[in-house]
Amino acid sequence: MPSLILVRHGQSQWNLENRFTGWWDVDLTDQGVAEAKAAGVLLAETGMLPTVAFTSLQTRAIKTLHLALEECHRLWIPETKDWHLNERHYGGLTGLDKQETRDRHGDEQVHIWRRSFDVPPPPMDRGSEYDLSSDPRYAGIAIPDTESLKLTIERVLPYWERAIRPVLASGETVIISAHGNSLRALVKHLSNISDDDITGLEIPTGQPIVYDFDDTMTPGERHYLKDR
Amino acid sequence: MPSLILVRHGQSQWNLENRFTGWWDVDLTDQGVAEAKAAGVLLAETGMLPTVAFTSLQTRAIKTLHLALEECHRLWIPETKDWHLNERHYGGLTGLDKQETRDRHGDEQVHIWRRSFDVPPPPMDRGSEYDLSSDPRYAGIAIPDTESLKLTIERVLPYWERAIRPVLASGETVIISAHGNSLRALVKHLSNISDDDITGLEIPTGQPIVYDFDDTMTPGERHYLKDR
Repeated sequence: MPSLILVRHGQSQWNLENRFTGWWDVDLTDQGVAEAKAAGVLLAETGMLPTVAFTSLQTRAIKTLHLALEECHRLWIPETKDWHLNERHYGGLTGLDKQETRDRHGDEQVHIWRRSFDVPPPPMDRGSEYDLSSDPRYAGIAIPDTESLKLTIERVLPYWERAIRPVLASGETVIISAHGNSLRALVKHLSNISDDDITGLEIPTGQPIVYDFDDTMTPGERHYLKDR
Repeated sequence: MPSLILVRHGQSQWNLENRFTGWWDVDLTDQGVAEAKAAGVLLAETGMLPTVAFTSLQTRAIKTLHLALEECHRLWIPETKDWHLNERHYGGLTGLDKQETRDRHGDEQVHIWRRSFDVPPPPMDRGSEYDLSSDPRYAGIAIPDTESLKLTIERVLPYWERAIRPVLASGETVIISAHGNSLRALVKHLSNISDDDITGLEIPTGQPIVYDFDDTMTPGERHYLKDR
């Protein structure tokens, strides 16, 4: 039966600094590297060995994937990197830490942006130091200038249906190394979570989440691999 | 114009121990890791930035690729891993060090195996500790039981023509992270080297070799990127 493994990248430098990151390409911290390796050790110890991998175009997710695959001796499996699995784009909040954001926009507004399902932050200014429009990795891609969780889901789910689900349905054990919000999109869909509830669901870093599918491709309960 | 970058993996544990490795999956040494990173730094410094990557199914080549791409901030490029780029299969010599091989088979025979174009070493015994027939990475693949350089070329070149050359012809900067003999196969073809001469051509570890192609897809002279 197919299994799906979701892993949120290990701690990044801006997770540590409490800054909105979104599409900005921030590296893992030493702790993030350790989390990624520990995820791979857990895959090896539980025998939950991925056969196909998907990840985003962002270094922190790609490195998490590689570090985990190395630990379970699976660096050789096919991997696909796609922008549809990128983190939610935080628009004009990108680069701000939580205190700066509150000082600039007020507590209440920040709470709305963080916890609402469909209110996007203000768009990123063209010419911002975090503008990615000249980054060659996004050549030919219509980079969003901001995203709500709803907008994130609207680009993650079609990619899931088109690219990932058919591979899973062919019997593979698929690992997706991605981000808090692109993984929320998948968990909302697979566990049938409401718009209101999904914004409060935290995906911990470096902690593999597993769904087993039956032969009608219906997912079972999600669980942490560590609890298996 | 398209460019092709060839990188032989950094020093492996069995390079260091002077043992025949072939398809056995041996990791990089610390020196090998440093060589791979240095290759990536050179790519960044010279602006020779790959846009598409190919590698083998062997950890030492995949890790070399990842370490080099990380240094030049290109972890996000598409990568394809394929057994056709694996090292030459050394058959029954796999795991032996050079002295053991000489003791067992005699100096003259060892010289023939190492330097002849079309004489394969003795086949690997089924049930050898280095038999890979139950390794899931090679499921569905007819694993050779030994290969001459000629046999290696006969599986590398069709893959080059089918999978890599069309990508290069579309204008990409392609990096291939592979092995001494799978890279010899490509260099022999691209630089038109005779059967007699190719067996003596050494490909140094971690040292990017570049071919620039003209608009008829004719390769220019090969050169080391460090000499550019």
